[in-house]
Amino acid sequence: MKIRIAQFGLGPIGLETLKLAAGKPWAEIVGGVDIDPAKIGQDLGVLTGMKSLRGRRVWGSLEELVACGRPDVVFHTAVSRFKDAFAQIEPMARRGISVVSSSEELLFPRLREPKLAAKLDQLCRKTGARVIGTGVNPGFVMDVLPICLTGVSRVVRAIHVQRVVNASTRRAPLQKKIGSGLLPAEFRRLFKLGQAGHAGLKESLSLVAHCLGWSLENLVETGDAVVADHHIRTQYLEVKKGQTCGLHQRAEATVNGRICLTLDLKMYLDAKNPHDAVQIEGEPPLNVVIHGGVAGDQATVAALVNTAPRLLQAPAGLLLMTDLPVPRLA
Amino acid sequence: MKIRIAQFGLGPIGLETLKLAAGKPWAEIVGGVDIDPAKIGQDLGVLTGMKSLRGRRVWGSLEELVACGRPDVVFHTAVSRFKDAFAQIEPMARRGISVVSSSEELLFPRLREPKLAAKLDQLCRKTGARVIGTGVNPGFVMDVLPICLTGVSRVVRAIHVQRVVNASTRRAPLQKKIGSGLLPAEFRRLFKLGQAGHAGLKESLSLVAHCLGWSLENLVETGDAVVADHHIRTQYLEVKKGQTCGLHQRAEATVNGRICLTLDLKMYLDAKNPHDAVQIEGEPPLNVVIHGGVAGDQATVAALVNTAPRLLQAPAGLLLMTDLPVPRLA
Repeated sequence: MKIRIAQFGLGPIGLETLKLAAGKPWAEIVGGVDIDPAKIGQDLGVLTGMKSLRGRRVWGSLEELVACGRPDVVFHTAVSRFKDAFAQIEPMARRGISVVSSSEELLFPRLREPKLAAKLDQLCRKTGARVIGTGVNPGFVMDVLPICLTGVSRVVRAIHVQRVVNASTRRAPLQKKIGSGLLPAEFRRLFKLGQAGHAGLKESLSLVAHCLGWSLENLVETGDAVVADHHIRTQYLEVKKGQTCGLHQRAEATVNGRICLTLDLKMYLDAKNPHDAVQIEGEPPLNVVIHGGVAGDQATVAALVNTAPRLLQAPAGLLLMTDLPVPRLA
Repeated sequence: MKIRIAQFGLGPIGLETLKLAAGKPWAEIVGGVDIDPAKIGQDLGVLTGMKSLRGRRVWGSLEELVACGRPDVVFHTAVSRFKDAFAQIEPMARRGISVVSSSEELLFPRLREPKLAAKLDQLCRKTGARVIGTGVNPGFVMDVLPICLTGVSRVVRAIHVQRVVNASTRRAPLQKKIGSGLLPAEFRRLFKLGQAGHAGLKESLSLVAHCLGWSLENLVETGDAVVADHHIRTQYLEVKKGQTCGLHQRAEATVNGRICLTLDLKMYLDAKNPHDAVQIEGEPPLNVVIHGGVAGDQATVAALVNTAPRLLQAPAGLLLMTDLPVPRLA
């Protein structure tokens, strides 16, 4: 029995997710949904360049998709905020359809929207749906991986995660998202308004704390511009010396008055030595480096697709990545 | 409700496991079991130096322990082979008592003893017991961690794991176990007879393959002596130049005629640059290094204790570490 899959959101990440899923022997693609009038009605075979998807369509609504064929799982790659995702996912859960979402806030939805999270969880338990948020960050490097490493810890005193991404190697929307070309003051203003910056650091911190049974006393997030010290030209844009070429974002939290968890993210153009590092102060000490880092877009798509088979084996509900068995290639 | 715990096997690892567990707020120690007449009847408070364990005893058999207080979980740290572990664990499972074992072969018991594994699984499902094998190697560095990393892989072409342990920093039994002081020819003879070497590499390979849905066509394990190039004196023993000072063991397997999985383990005295490295060839490529490596004894004890709460939440049966939710500090 194949897993029947639909794709909700056909932007760059959605298309890549669909293509990866379509190549899996356990998957059968039933169709896609997007609100973009330019995409509605299009053939997925044409959109993806995959012959095997010919005849599958992009629908303008979940209702139309379901009328044509009910999926077991929807890959949802449309929004960052849980509040926005809820409106799109609730009708799926109501039909008992499970969802793997790239919504950053869905990694730990009860942090910002405890009532909506409880409501969605209750609905899922009633209909048999499972809903989960995943990705690479949040979803792996700054949460699932450090949590997994503490499985061999006698004692954990602090966890520090660093991620340095060379945004020059990433897609155009990400190069924009990190503020490229803005004046640093403008970036800071937008960050304060919540209109710039990377989503998910607080969710990662909260997931780690949840799994270790820690109560976070303070949860502080800061963001600043990385300022270009030379003229930068990428495949997609140009940044002058003195303009913003990326972001430096940091979340930290204390337990018992001591800093115990720090997540430090730098994503900027022409970043040297991109890498991920997880340091666990404790017994034994653990000092893990992923040289080159985990490539964001590829890994996010993989995390979404790889999660589906394990999700369908799990009990119904609004789930966390750490509720499922150890992640793996599917 | 605390988890009631008993310790089976009171050697160095067993004692450390007991001590770590005794400090957990969720644990209540009911007693220990050992077959060593010198230990039977002793007070666990005296053996461990922990006041909180005063009045808990070492019993000579499971029957006597259970008559005094039934545990929910037994930490079993007595033997490497599943066949030997089976004889000790079967009576626990028959009573519905769950078991976390350091038996290396229990990481993937169906590899060497499929019939015994099926029998134990069936028994567990009948009585409600859960039995699992874990540790650091096997149990984490060469299996659970690489599997977890593939959770963000689109494609995996090969997995290579290297572990270099400086045995000079380890306990006496391990320094002996790696062949220290033997003539290299004698080490090789014993390795061929299965009387020297590290247990568990084939189990790690098999667990990785199982989780990735790979059929291993060849599974080859080789072992050789590391020969001392200088006179070595540790806290526990001396090795002359030209004698064995450790082992170099390697397991590899092919899928579709191509080498896809290699596990390479060096444990020797005075090893330089101890570390663990996991390289995943695929999309994205992943190049992970744990500087200094994961300290073996500490991590094994932690893996055992941390597994207990998750194990008791799992369905009954003979389980794999990868069946449980993501590992974490408990």
